[in-house]
Amino acid sequence: MKLWQKENTVTSEKIEKFTVGKDREMDLHLAEFDVLGNLAHAEMLQTIGLLAADELEALRGELKQIHQLIENGGFVIEDGVEDVHSQVELMLTRKLGDTGKKIHSGRSRNDQVLVDMKLYTRARLFEVVQATEKLFDVLASRSEEHKNDLLPGYTHLQIAMPSSFGLWFGAYAEALVDDVIQLNAAYRLANRNPLGSGAGYGSSFPLNRQLTTDLLGFEGMHHNVVYAQMSRGRTEQAALMAISSLAATVSRLAMDVCLYNSQNFSFITLPDELTTGSSIMPHKKNPDVAELLRAKTNRMKALPMEVTMVLSNLPSGYHRDMQLLKEILMPAFDEILECLDIAAFMLENMKVKQNLLDDSKYDLLFSVERVNELVISGVPFRDAYRQVGAEIGDGSYTAPRALKHTHEGSIGNLQTDEIRERMKREIAVFEYDKVKKALEDLIRK
Amino acid sequence: MKLWQKENTVTSEKIEKFTVGKDREMDLHLAEFDVLGNLAHAEMLQTIGLLAADELEALRGELKQIHQLIENGGFVIEDGVEDVHSQVELMLTRKLGDTGKKIHSGRSRNDQVLVDMKLYTRARLFEVVQATEKLFDVLASRSEEHKNDLLPGYTHLQIAMPSSFGLWFGAYAEALVDDVIQLNAAYRLANRNPLGSGAGYGSSFPLNRQLTTDLLGFEGMHHNVVYAQMSRGRTEQAALMAISSLAATVSRLAMDVCLYNSQNFSFITLPDELTTGSSIMPHKKNPDVAELLRAKTNRMKALPMEVTMVLSNLPSGYHRDMQLLKEILMPAFDEILECLDIAAFMLENMKVKQNLLDDSKYDLLFSVERVNELVISGVPFRDAYRQVGAEIGDGSYTAPRALKHTHEGSIGNLQTDEIRERMKREIAVFEYDKVKKALEDLIRK
Amino acid sequence: MKLWQKENTVTSEKIEKFTVGKDREMDLHLAEFDVLGNLAHAEMLQTIGLLAADELEALRGELKQIHQLIENGGFVIEDGVEDVHSQVELMLTRKLGDTGKKIHSGRSRNDQVLVDMKLYTRARLFEVVQATEKLFDVLASRSEEHKNDLLPGYTHLQIAMPSSFGLWFGAYAEALVDDVIQLNAAYRLANRNPLGSGAGYGSSFPLNRQLTTDLLGFEGMHHNVVYAQMSRGRTEQAALMAISSLAATVSRLAMDVCLYNSQNFSFITLPDELTTGSSIMPHKKNPDVAELLRAKTNRMKALPMEVTMVLSNLPSGYHRDMQLLKEILMPAFDEILECLDIAAFMLENMKVKQNLLDDSKYDLLFSVERVNELVISGVPFRDAYRQVGAEIGDGSYTAPRALKHTHEGSIGNLQTDEIRERMKREIAVFEYDKVKKALEDLIRK
Amino acid sequence: MKLWQKENTVTSEKIEKFTVGKDREMDLHLAEFDVLGNLAHAEMLQTIGLLAADELEALRGELKQIHQLIENGGFVIEDGVEDVHSQVELMLTRKLGDTGKKIHSGRSRNDQVLVDMKLYTRARLFEVVQATEKLFDVLASRSEEHKNDLLPGYTHLQIAMPSSFGLWFGAYAEALVDDVIQLNAAYRLANRNPLGSGAGYGSSFPLNRQLTTDLLGFEGMHHNVVYAQMSRGRTEQAALMAISSLAATVSRLAMDVCLYNSQNFSFITLPDELTTGSSIMPHKKNPDVAELLRAKTNRMKALPMEVTMVLSNLPSGYHRDMQLLKEILMPAFDEILECLDIAAFMLENMKVKQNLLDDSKYDLLFSVERVNELVISGVPFRDAYRQVGAEIGDGSYTAPRALKHTHEGSIGNLQTDEIRERMKREIAVFEYDKVKKALEDLIRK
Repeated sequence: MKLWQKENTVTSEKIEKFTVGKDREMDLHLAEFDVLGNLAHAEMLQTIGLLAADELEALRGELKQIHQLIENGGFVIEDGVEDVHSQVELMLTRKLGDTGKKIHSGRSRNDQVLVDMKLYTRARLFEVVQATEKLFDVLASRSEEHKNDLLPGYTHLQIAMPSSFGLWFGAYAEALVDDVIQLNAAYRLANRNPLGSGAGYGSSFPLNRQLTTDLLGFEGMHHNVVYAQMSRGRTEQAALMAISSLAATVSRLAMDVCLYNSQNFSFITLPDELTTGSSIMPHKKNPDVAELLRAKTNRMKALPMEVTMVLSNLPSGYHRDMQLLKEILMPAFDEILECLDIAAFMLENMKVKQNLLDDSKYDLLFSVERVNELVISGVPFRDAYRQVGAEIGDGSYTAPRALKHTHEGSIGNLQTDEIRERMKREIAVFEYDKVKKALEDLIRK
Repeated sequence: MKLWQKENTVTSEKIEKFTVGKDREMDLHLAEFDVLGNLAHAEMLQTIGLLAADELEALRGELKQIHQLIENGGFVIEDGVEDVHSQVELMLTRKLGDTGKKIHSGRSRNDQVLVDMKLYTRARLFEVVQATEKLFDVLASRSEEHKNDLLPGYTHLQIAMPSSFGLWFGAYAEALVDDVIQLNAAYRLANRNPLGSGAGYGSSFPLNRQLTTDLLGFEGMHHNVVYAQMSRGRTEQAALMAISSLAATVSRLAMDVCLYNSQNFSFITLPDELTTGSSIMPHKKNPDVAELLRAKTNRMKALPMEVTMVLSNLPSGYHRDMQLLKEILMPAFDEILECLDIAAFMLENMKVKQNLLDDSKYDLLFSVERVNELVISGVPFRDAYRQVGAEIGDGSYTAPRALKHTHEGSIGNLQTDEIRERMKREIAVFEYDKVKKALEDLIRK
Repeated sequence: MKLWQKENTVTSEKIEKFTVGKDREMDLHLAEFDVLGNLAHAEMLQTIGLLAADELEALRGELKQIHQLIENGGFVIEDGVEDVHSQVELMLTRKLGDTGKKIHSGRSRNDQVLVDMKLYTRARLFEVVQATEKLFDVLASRSEEHKNDLLPGYTHLQIAMPSSFGLWFGAYAEALVDDVIQLNAAYRLANRNPLGSGAGYGSSFPLNRQLTTDLLGFEGMHHNVVYAQMSRGRTEQAALMAISSLAATVSRLAMDVCLYNSQNFSFITLPDELTTGSSIMPHKKNPDVAELLRAKTNRMKALPMEVTMVLSNLPSGYHRDMQLLKEILMPAFDEILECLDIAAFMLENMKVKQNLLDDSKYDLLFSVERVNELVISGVPFRDAYRQVGAEIGDGSYTAPRALKHTHEGSIGNLQTDEIRERMKREIAVFEYDKVKKALEDLIRK
Repeated sequence: MKLWQKENTVTSEKIEKFTVGKDREMDLHLAEFDVLGNLAHAEMLQTIGLLAADELEALRGELKQIHQLIENGGFVIEDGVEDVHSQVELMLTRKLGDTGKKIHSGRSRNDQVLVDMKLYTRARLFEVVQATEKLFDVLASRSEEHKNDLLPGYTHLQIAMPSSFGLWFGAYAEALVDDVIQLNAAYRLANRNPLGSGAGYGSSFPLNRQLTTDLLGFEGMHHNVVYAQMSRGRTEQAALMAISSLAATVSRLAMDVCLYNSQNFSFITLPDELTTGSSIMPHKKNPDVAELLRAKTNRMKALPMEVTMVLSNLPSGYHRDMQLLKEILMPAFDEILECLDIAAFMLENMKVKQNLLDDSKYDLLFSVERVNELVISGVPFRDAYRQVGAEIGDGSYTAPRALKHTHEGSIGNLQTDEIRERMKREIAVFEYDKVKKALEDLIRK
């Protein structure tokens, strides 16, 4: 049963399967947001005279019941019902008859899906921010914990200069701050109200779009109704771009872990529960978890391309193609959240080796220290550089192992507090409390 | 229970979920091929003295039973069993004790997975070829059926020269021939035996790799064992590249259908079961099926990138990352097969409009005919071109509507037979009958 | 001559060509920023005692001369000099001897390149913002100009509901506001000071990184030195992601133009200078400019993937691979700027057709108006929907052509002022005046 | 001056620059092939009466002169001439007057460009095959040279089993064989004649397309003229897919080299001319060449996406967008050829370390040998596996260092001859001699 279905249409099962695809499964995640959108839309309809006060009351009552049902896990999309939007409208109509039939006034399924997707994406992006903060905390703590544990620093995979676990953990912590900035750009796109744009061309009813904007806690509205529709796809892509940046951070971290765990580096030890054996080599302890973390986050980096592929060269106006984007976006949230969680678990349980730099094979890490000694004694840098090169060549070089890095962000001055402060500030930008309050008000009213 | 599991390892459930992922689900598709690989490996082990004749007989008996079970749909990967390979070995060991424990001699899970994936990919690629041929047949038939139904030909989306539905359908038919060529390149990569490469470094047992190559009907073997392992990922990617090319053909066809179905073109009519209505506009008949066909095939074009993302900059040697490739490759076969099927259905049920070119707005389609008339009368081409331009400018141009295209591949000479012949030849290159026979022999022996 | 070159190294010409690549050409664009970075670094070195006051004065003098040379177009990277950084140091050393040799103290070429790239990217991103604003102004003006010129609105490429050129132009205007938000996220990554991170592991000199941060007008610094280095590549990618989003907006606009210009739509007319003829069809006026705009902007959407490809699975620490990113990023700025300029030119010179909806083939655009009439008269929406469907079926439907869309963002209420206001606010976020002032102060001091 | 230019068209310089882009630069590479296409077309025109015998003779004479000019490097596209095709036609017309004006009969610039691109792509793909063979030879030789030099074999970047430089070099050699197979699939697409398809809708002249197919040495023709046009873009993409596969092989090789060159592995030594120093660390010898090889080949893996971006969702029929593909394809040939050359140079000059496995840290590489000893003595594999695990645990394990790998493709049996044989066979499939002969005949006739 489809709301748009006319009398004599016969749809074969094969076509049904092809068109519905994973929509019903995906749509369950939208149910909560569909109810919120319905609440705001109904309240607005009443202010412009398209619903009577008692009709609104009845609709609010039913919608709150459906919301309860969703929270309790009892909500289902019935067999033969096309999507979550039809299901909710059907439930309202079953209970309230003509009143239920009125709720779609001044609305199209297009802006209904859009507003659901905006609310969903906004909520899940903030979930990602929170999981990112959790991983950040682990990294920042381990950075402080190991600020005195030195590590060879590499450039070109060649031994370069002294580094530390403090620096290494801290680097990924700070990386996550910039990921939060990119998440915010996507969040702001999700935080705009498309409701009232109808099928992309608005309505001749005197809708009050500012009201639904306020009720749903949006930062503002997509003013132009054609653009509101155009934001479909674009919002998904912005979210996936931000997620792919975050995935890239995690992926690089996982690559480091895999490398540092190789016997040829041996900088860290992974606990048994994070390694697996081989079917043939009895000595193996393979870092499968880190490898899968790397693979999964790497794969996510292709997600924005999938959206681009679908959208490229589609003229403006809605196309059914956009329906497919749900299948690309929604699982991505689950994946990145799982990866962030596993990464935090891995980092918490990883052991770092101590006194790594005592090994004489790392002597040359200190060559720049030797250059700097000479510079401080007055030798111009370029001459000092050549002199140390010569010392290394003739074997007279000895490594000056005492480190005295004190400037901002260096081994001796990690600035963890400053980095924590940045993270706090960037998360505050989301003003998610306001959003939460608006939605609670809407449902409680 | 894992075959490589050592005594005191504790793996938390979360990690288990993360590492196993969709493997168990994916692995069910490999079961049939795992049995085939086991049969060939066992037979070979017996020839080099690592299995006694009666042990081989017992193993063959059990493996055939498992094969039967798979065919009947009764095969399951038990709870706690990591993958299909462990499940099969477990079933053999349960029934045959020490004999079962011997079958993994001279083999690693790595080459076992690899050979399964090769057999799987080879089989499914040929399935795709067959579905492509079916779509080809529809296109070729409709091309012949409508060879006299003219269509405006466009360049730059501007009215250009006369075309026909015969040409349009036939173009996509011939496109599929080249898709089959690209599928064959991937097929040849899948059609090479990696068995015997172990974990990527071979074995000190005197394995007879030519024997398993012959038993499994492979074109040849991946000789170098390090390369055999390196073909993991690469085989998947080659398959996905070929599939993405095929998807691009279908996607462009679907774009044409969406455009031609627009009221502004109105070249074709889609039957009701291929259209859907609108939740708000009572007059709509939207070509959702064609749009989803376009979207799904467009999305598939990003698949090779996903594999590239996972593999990029991994040093040689197996990494667990490669396990994730199953999740990328396997669903792609189902998707492309569904898309090919739906495309065939759509083309069979689509109606084409007749006499389209009678509309005066298409008069200019015939301007080149006018030029050619002049050329034949002796005017040099460039002068004729200018003269007709002037005629159009001053309104004296009249469209010479009689068409006389006779050369190879033109409106009057579609060469459907030649195109059919090409398709037949390219499919013959696969020599799939030989493969089928080898596998039947192996299972029946 | 390379600054790092040791005595007996011979580099063949082939290798030279391969490694230097387009670096020298790219580096010319960095010259101006290299001087700025040098000025800030030198000033800081003096405050920590690594340069005497008169040495600083001498260096400042020379650097200002070089800056002048660059502005006059007289700066060259001499034959045999590897890059812009070596050229500048060479010029300083030639003139100032030992003083010149001191300027590289506490710095590595890595953070020197990084700071140049940050300054360059920051400047060019703001250039893109300004060009975006220019295109925005054209769109907003044409939106107002044509607010009464109606246009068929499509969904699924099917005639849907009435739209207008006002809505259509305005939609792309508002789209650009969101592009500016995404540009800002990239800008903020570029607006962080990496100077002082050396080769990625800081320095044992007591550098004052806050000072250079202030001198160069950065929002703040990349605190952690390992992360500062890690921001290489990531900054480029964020910039390219934002550019690719903007390109997607322009590309979709160009697709609309190509379609609307087709005789089958005929909604707009392109002036002669934006069309080209055919070598064979004398009647053609092809929209080549719009097509190339579409193609070029579409191609740009792959740019973030190029960066991803290069960076994927590289362990932390600098790798020469990153040098290649300049060739990806730098031409992208020129391309997008050219595309924005051409798009503005095209929109300014395009003519729109009037009274399009008078054609009876667009009657069904008004079916929702008819539904809404019934709804206002009290019929529940779903029943009204069915009734109009029936009217269309039996031929009794007549199009109610009077439009009364008044809500925010609809045909009758474009909210151009609100959209202009949004644009102004988002551009203000960049606080580029502060940046400009800091750099002017640095050079003038 | 453009051949299609009508009287009163004014094209602004800006637009000119935007539309011509890099076309004139790119087109120089097509000049040689444009002459060949012209020769074949002219010869065919004479057989169908559109050229007199003496006109053909005159055209042949001029075309051969132009060919000579191209070979001598004297051919230029004059200022104001749009492309190579116009330039050639202009030169013919200048010399031969009306005869020159006749050569474009029965042809459009579309099929003229197409046939040029096919001939160009075909030639350059075979150039890539030849360069691949050269790299193959280096790899195969070094594989044989170092068949006794052992190397630790890794899985999961963990020490796994013994490998050898023989295996490692040989693996990449065999990889290239499969790259040649993928190149052939692309080659076959390039090896089809589109001439006679005109602007994509054929001609009303009785063209003899089989004749031009034979004259130009094509395997066959694209029969359907609409499909012939559709092969534009697709041919480029197939070529770029094959090139990207080849690039992936080289990129992985370069990653191995970078890793093996790290002090933590120290398996190989790069000669001084392949390394560079640091601006700050006097001890560094960085593998910049290998890194740039990795970066450049990685970047190339995004090329097929660029083409996909441009083509996605373009309806059938030529669009100017396709012109941009030249800029994507043509430089890719130069890049891959340079990378193949540098890779060969690097491999030839790289030194491998000997006796690597004597280091006790590699003892566990031999654990499977110990398992196999037990298996041969009759212990079932799974029990032997557990026993050796226990030995490693309690310290009683000793590494059985004598290797006895004899099976196909293993350390003791590299099968270099078989791999060489495969390469020879796959290159023979191209039948490039026939192509060469046809083109020589055409030019000499």
